[in-house]
Amino acid sequence: MKIYDFKGAPNPRRVRVFLAEKAADVVYVQIDIFAGHNRAPEFLSKNPLGGLPVLEFDDGTYLAESVAICRYFEGIYPEPPLMGISPKDAAFVEMWNRRMELELFGPLSTALLHSHPMFKERMQQFPEFGVTQREHALKRAEWLDSLLAQREFVAGDRYTIADITAQVAVDFSQHFGVMQIPEHARHLKRWHQAVSKRPSAQA
Amino acid sequence: MKIYDFKGAPNPRRVRVFLAEKAADVVYVQIDIFAGHNRAPEFLSKNPLGGLPVLEFDDGTYLAESVAICRYFEGIYPEPPLMGISPKDAAFVEMWNRRMELELFGPLSTALLHSHPMFKERMQQFPEFGVTQREHALKRAEWLDSLLAQREFVAGDRYTIADITAQVAVDFSQHFGVMQIPEHARHLKRWHQAVSKRPSAQA
Repeated sequence: MKIYDFKGAPNPRRVRVFLAEKAADVVYVQIDIFAGHNRAPEFLSKNPLGGLPVLEFDDGTYLAESVAICRYFEGIYPEPPLMGISPKDAAFVEMWNRRMELELFGPLSTALLHSHPMFKERMQQFPEFGVTQREHALKRAEWLDSLLAQREFVAGDRYTIADITAQVAVDFSQHFGVMQIPEHARHLKRWHQAVSKRPSAQA
Repeated sequence: MKIYDFKGAPNPRRVRVFLAEKAADVVYVQIDIFAGHNRAPEFLSKNPLGGLPVLEFDDGTYLAESVAICRYFEGIYPEPPLMGISPKDAAFVEMWNRRMELELFGPLSTALLHSHPMFKERMQQFPEFGVTQREHALKRAEWLDSLLAQREFVAGDRYTIADITAQVAVDFSQHFGVMQIPEHARHLKRWHQAVSKRPSAQA
């Protein structure tokens, strides 16, 4: 098995952090998105949508979509559990992971895509729309701060995939200047410092 | 257990179709989104984001997010399997469900939100952005048509949650005039006719 990866993009990092938490030994192959290598025919034969990461199985099949790749590894390496254990627990982790995706990671990615010069040539940007997405994410970050006043991690008392999604969202937003954690959001800051200290954060 | 539902919205229908396939007996309670009942304090105490559907457990906890609700029922009622069986199978179903969400359902919802008069008072619309989303979805519908030339269902030989997501996306788009299945997309049409004939399509 190997994973087609790109160090400079948020989605591949979700899988790298997840696999670092699992202590899974996987070979990574870099595909340079900035150089357009994910749009070359050779890569499109692996994932016709051009997205990264992609997991290549030894039988020559290809699995795309970050959370699908995480789910596969959760199945074959159940420890430590990052996607819940019982059906109810797994469902609540999925709810929180989706909320982090739909309310934070997604809007912040959209804000970046519609505002950053590096995407200007590649798509039609609507900067004002990007601003509404940034504002939406900022409101949700305040909400997340209030939740983290009551519990240690995003989905409750245990570190899960929902923390990884939120962590990667906050990190790429800070890196590209899309959003900073508000000064007064001290619970969110406490959580962000805690997840950033885990060895997996280096992935 | 009961589910807060709304007959006129796409996400609640995903769960209704899923549960109809499982022959699960659940009480549905209607929350009128058009009348703003999902924004009333009583409902926001169940789901602070105001989204539907929401599953209420007998212990008074609430589970939101359509796919999280589906995952819970997949766990407690494994037959018929709609989210894969082995870890690899489950991961591929998740990939296809996410592709249907991110490439079809999502862009079509966005196109509807940014173009339809009924959302004018509720949000800032960017109609030109909506057009780009519709065009994106149409391109993906053509891709899906080419895939369905080779297999019976979205994720392969078996009906799964990925079919439900795609079916609900196509149906609400046709209903609101956002997108029709292109005339020449005969494999997509064949698939749509087949899934529409299942008793669950009435849900």
